[in-house]
Amino acid sequence: MSDAGASEERRGRRPGEGNARADIESAARDSFARDGYAMTSIRGVARAAGVDPALVRHYFQTKENLFAAVIRLPFDPAIAVHRITSAGRDRVGRELATVVSEILADPARSQQVVAMVRAAATEPQGARLIRGALTTAMIVPIVEILQSDHAEKRAALASAQIIGFLMGRLILGFESLVALDAEAVVAALAPSLQQSLTGPLLERA
Amino acid sequence: MSDAGASEERRGRRPGEGNARADIESAARDSFARDGYAMTSIRGVARAAGVDPALVRHYFQTKENLFAAVIRLPFDPAIAVHRITSAGRDRVGRELATVVSEILADPARSQQVVAMVRAAATEPQGARLIRGALTTAMIVPIVEILQSDHAEKRAALASAQIIGFLMGRLILGFESLVALDAEAVVAALAPSLQQSLTGPLLERA
Repeated sequence: MSDAGASEERRGRRPGEGNARADIESAARDSFARDGYAMTSIRGVARAAGVDPALVRHYFQTKENLFAAVIRLPFDPAIAVHRITSAGRDRVGRELATVVSEILADPARSQQVVAMVRAAATEPQGARLIRGALTTAMIVPIVEILQSDHAEKRAALASAQIIGFLMGRLILGFESLVALDAEAVVAALAPSLQQSLTGPLLERA
Repeated sequence: MSDAGASEERRGRRPGEGNARADIESAARDSFARDGYAMTSIRGVARAAGVDPALVRHYFQTKENLFAAVIRLPFDPAIAVHRITSAGRDRVGRELATVVSEILADPARSQQVVAMVRAAATEPQGARLIRGALTTAMIVPIVEILQSDHAEKRAALASAQIIGFLMGRLILGFESLVALDAEAVVAALAPSLQQSLTGPLLERA
């Protein structure tokens, strides 16, 4: 759950044993993204990292723990929280839409979204970890800025909208979403996010 | 891509050879939903259906074809199209939200959503087929009713919102979405769908 630049920092800086751990994490990230959770094995990760499977088990014990260690949000949570909380109620939809357009502008982050959705869809453990990560990084700060009765529901609605948009564009490949440039993504997505977050909800029938 | 009741009709009505085909389709549907596309094999489906793998290949040739034959939308496209087109512009968000709440009220349809998302996330072929099915059943009729410049973009936005909501509730399990009853689903989802479909979009910066 670190930011997208962390793997760059990690390479070649840690001495000795630390490199093996970083190599294992890198190989695991590749395998979870490419092959999915079910098809990833400790043995396969060890082979790709050039280490003994026992070393992978020494560091991470189980495949679940390994997954939890390498899962990443496709945005820097600290930056996203700062933006959301400094935007103010009336601009929060636009700020969130901008976070989305920045993810789409970066192929590595876009690939992380695909890996996240795949992990969540194929594995309850993946879904649970991703729910926790999104709650901390997105829902809780939105709830804080909204300070309204339905804040949690609204934050979850907006989060689901963002996930749906990313899925429609990156996984399903709806042509009219793929065609949007960065500004058009913000223009299209911001109003309905703002509606979910601060607009009137329907009265119950 | 038939409606949720089709397998009931199929059972016990077709003579001889037809039953084997229906059994294969049923076993395939179970396996794609439970194990995902990658872990499903013609051999495994044949075993579950109690037939020879050669018979599966005779009917469907490849795993791709088998998948295409059994993939289903979690709603009846004819009914959805009728509702969307008869609702009129100002109620289309509400009608779509009602389709979603009906899916959630039916465990079998909810399970189809999970299988669809899993297939799309793990397999480009799955994503392509599901994009085509949603375009025909949802995006095209919405575009027809909107009759506006940005109709296709708006329809894709709304479709992505629906997928995101279903994913947030059924796969990620956001608590404040899981807690919504049928009416509350409509109340929460309708306004932002309506905004995406007929509300003002942002001017580009």
